[in-house]
Amino acid sequence: MRYHKIPDETIRRLPLYLRGLQYLFDEGRQSISSTGLADFLHASAAQIRKDFSYFGDFGIRGVGYNVATLIKQIRNILKLSNTSGAALIGAGSLGTALLRYPGFKTYGFEITAVFDNSPDKIGKKIGKAKVEDIARVDELGKRGIKLAIIAVPSEAAQDVADKIIATGVNGILNFAPQFLTVPKKVKVITIDIAMELGRLPYYI
Amino acid sequence: MRYHKIPDETIRRLPLYLRGLQYLFDEGRQSISSTGLADFLHASAAQIRKDFSYFGDFGIRGVGYNVATLIKQIRNILKLSNTSGAALIGAGSLGTALLRYPGFKTYGFEITAVFDNSPDKIGKKIGKAKVEDIARVDELGKRGIKLAIIAVPSEAAQDVADKIIATGVNGILNFAPQFLTVPKKVKVITIDIAMELGRLPYYI
Repeated sequence: MRYHKIPDETIRRLPLYLRGLQYLFDEGRQSISSTGLADFLHASAAQIRKDFSYFGDFGIRGVGYNVATLIKQIRNILKLSNTSGAALIGAGSLGTALLRYPGFKTYGFEITAVFDNSPDKIGKKIGKAKVEDIARVDELGKRGIKLAIIAVPSEAAQDVADKIIATGVNGILNFAPQFLTVPKKVKVITIDIAMELGRLPYYI
Repeated sequence: MRYHKIPDETIRRLPLYLRGLQYLFDEGRQSISSTGLADFLHASAAQIRKDFSYFGDFGIRGVGYNVATLIKQIRNILKLSNTSGAALIGAGSLGTALLRYPGFKTYGFEITAVFDNSPDKIGKKIGKAKVEDIARVDELGKRGIKLAIIAVPSEAAQDVADKIIATGVNGILNFAPQFLTVPKKVKVITIDIAMELGRLPYYI
């Protein structure tokens, strides 16, 4: 199914809706109104209706949305069903924390490959993953891995990005507090932890 | 100095500007134009001029902005100068990674207290910090700590938030993938790692 162009702000909220709906589904809920979902997620019902309107009219007045259908739709839109696995570059303390992070499962993600350049780490097991030599990162393409998480020091991040993009990675979640220069076809989402903390005191 | 109400979107960008300016200052730069700063940060010059206009006209046509003055202004606006320290709740793998994260220094932050509920962790040293019993978290008020980072499992996050807010914390950086119900005077910024990864495949 093709969808109309969906605004970035809606895309940003879809994972939140998905998490809530998945929770409701696991609890046995079959349908939910926009108001019910809004209450559950501490969101706005009008916003939810507007966001959902981008992908078709499948809510029924007085009954609401079918939870399973919504989950399927959102997963389709976010292309989560096509996702095979993600590579993690950097097995330091942040990388290790990400390997142990339970939250990825909600979205069906699994870190299926881990790379580092430190001889101390290469060959070690962290959870289910075995750390591989960064020199072998060019195999990502052959293994069909298109998503990568960068958790290396700032000064190494651009070099790592260049290498993984060359092997076919086109989506990067970047934890290095560093701007990455990438080709247009590659999407980078940067999570800059210090920067988020940096704007907190303004509000208090 | 009082400032006009500054939009959230501008506040969101100020930490980025600050990091760039700090770098330029350390390199010996005394002044910079909006175009020069935009090039350096891969940002928009018009956006930068608009953002800076909220806190007064101190750029000089043809010369640009004084780097040291800008740094001081932005730190003032973000209230970074008043920040004494932050507490970390949760010394698991994510908490440990945060303790070792070098990026906080840019903004003058230091994690000055660490709490956990696990007897295995209490009393241990991680970097410079000694893990304290979560039961002692009510001392944060006495110690003047107003900022906290929550890195505990989802199911414990609300309880932790309630406890630290009761002791006077009014700014929280939350890593638990969990909506926190807090009083209006408390600001929560949630970094939801899985949710960011969840919207990445849409773009690729």
